[in-house]
Amino acid sequence: MTGPKIRLHVEQPLAAGQAIALSEAQANYLFAVMRLGPGAAVHLFNGRDGEWQAEVAEAGKRRGILVCRAQTAPQGAPPDVWLVFVPVRKDRTAFMVEKAVELGAARLVPVSTRRMNAERMRIDKHQAHATEAAEQCEATWVPEVAALQPLERLLTGWDPARRLYWADEDLARHAAGGDPAAPAAAGARAGAPVSPPARGERAAILIGPEGGFTTEERALLRGLPFVSPLSLGPRILRAETAALAALTLWQASAGDWR
Amino acid sequence: MTGPKIRLHVEQPLAAGQAIALSEAQANYLFAVMRLGPGAAVHLFNGRDGEWQAEVAEAGKRRGILVCRAQTAPQGAPPDVWLVFVPVRKDRTAFMVEKAVELGAARLVPVSTRRMNAERMRIDKHQAHATEAAEQCEATWVPEVAALQPLERLLTGWDPARRLYWADEDLARHAAGGDPAAPAAAGARAGAPVSPPARGERAAILIGPEGGFTTEERALLRGLPFVSPLSLGPRILRAETAALAALTLWQASAGDWR
Repeated sequence: MTGPKIRLHVEQPLAAGQAIALSEAQANYLFAVMRLGPGAAVHLFNGRDGEWQAEVAEAGKRRGILVCRAQTAPQGAPPDVWLVFVPVRKDRTAFMVEKAVELGAARLVPVSTRRMNAERMRIDKHQAHATEAAEQCEATWVPEVAALQPLERLLTGWDPARRLYWADEDLARHAAGGDPAAPAAAGARAGAPVSPPARGERAAILIGPEGGFTTEERALLRGLPFVSPLSLGPRILRAETAALAALTLWQASAGDWR
Repeated sequence: MTGPKIRLHVEQPLAAGQAIALSEAQANYLFAVMRLGPGAAVHLFNGRDGEWQAEVAEAGKRRGILVCRAQTAPQGAPPDVWLVFVPVRKDRTAFMVEKAVELGAARLVPVSTRRMNAERMRIDKHQAHATEAAEQCEATWVPEVAALQPLERLLTGWDPARRLYWADEDLARHAAGGDPAAPAAAGARAGAPVSPPARGERAAILIGPEGGFTTEERALLRGLPFVSPLSLGPRILRAETAALAALTLWQASAGDWR
């Protein structure tokens, strides 16, 4: 058997015969970590030109050159679903980013809310995680990680044609029936007509912070016509679990999993 | 607002007035980490008697006593779905265990296969992760983490009434269409009638090792009447992502998420 397929995201244009000069980090990865030598095959993508098989032409310690041989996959695009999330602890946010890319989110939108339990968000780090995940899952694109912004500001400028699915943990408490303080609002919402995700719709998934949304934030969300509740069962899911489960359900009913 | 609900899994019976002597680790958690004092409320469950609110009666450095006051939730049970998985890197296996509990797996069954890329499996550690996840997600049970066993042995003794969903990554390669070497078998299988998960069925999800199943293992699986393929979209998912996505889809169509 052959070894695992090595894929690298690059910025340069990809075309037959095109030479690609590697960055120091890329050269280190291919030649020191993966121990490739001249003639070895690497697959490249840049988010525009599909996937190409390239060959190592020069392998140095801190530099190297690949030459594109043949296109191996056409350029794809993820379904138009965003993940809007509140950064949680660093490793769990990294995990959420990685998984969202694998599951097929088009854009990752971190937001701040009143109850936010995280260090300063390192967009560059998370963009790097997204790139690694795209390399690994054989996507031909890398979703953008947007700059952190307040949830209210994001909602103010929201395109109402993009449905925002809100995985509201009060629905879980209500479904479990274990919490006598489960707000009447959950019941009211459960009674509202909810149409399932529709194939081809523009959508986003909203995942709250670890401490939950405040009463004011909940009232704001409940009043918005483009917000639809999404139930993720009777257990209380951590933020990153809820994000993955919601993306899975959306992909299976409206995205590219069918 | 009140602080987060503190939940603890205990072994002792739970009933009104029942006193619960804490282990050293439990006392440390409640009194040193969470800084609770006498009179504070803690929620307890043991997998048999539902969830109880208890009160701290004595708080010591290495010991303590709680007294059960009132039942706050009836005893629940997870839907009868198992996760059969090949241990991957330690942190990713821990993550898979934690998420499987939150999503609602009844039993976690680690198996060994030819291509297995993991250290020795620490069942006790993973059982502890499962317990913590149950405490956190407000389940009233803790799934058992079974002992590691060879996949072939597990399949030999398999109850044919339990459907085994196999998230076969060849289906992803086939769906993506990017791999000209996608085996004909995937096409054949895609053409086979596949009934969706049915409410109330006994089921299990099978997730392969990072390097994939061998040709022999694939042939074995394909020949078993209780094995059903499960498609998780066109991207190549890591083992833990596939586990979570498959459990999510099963819960939404056959489990307790409806």
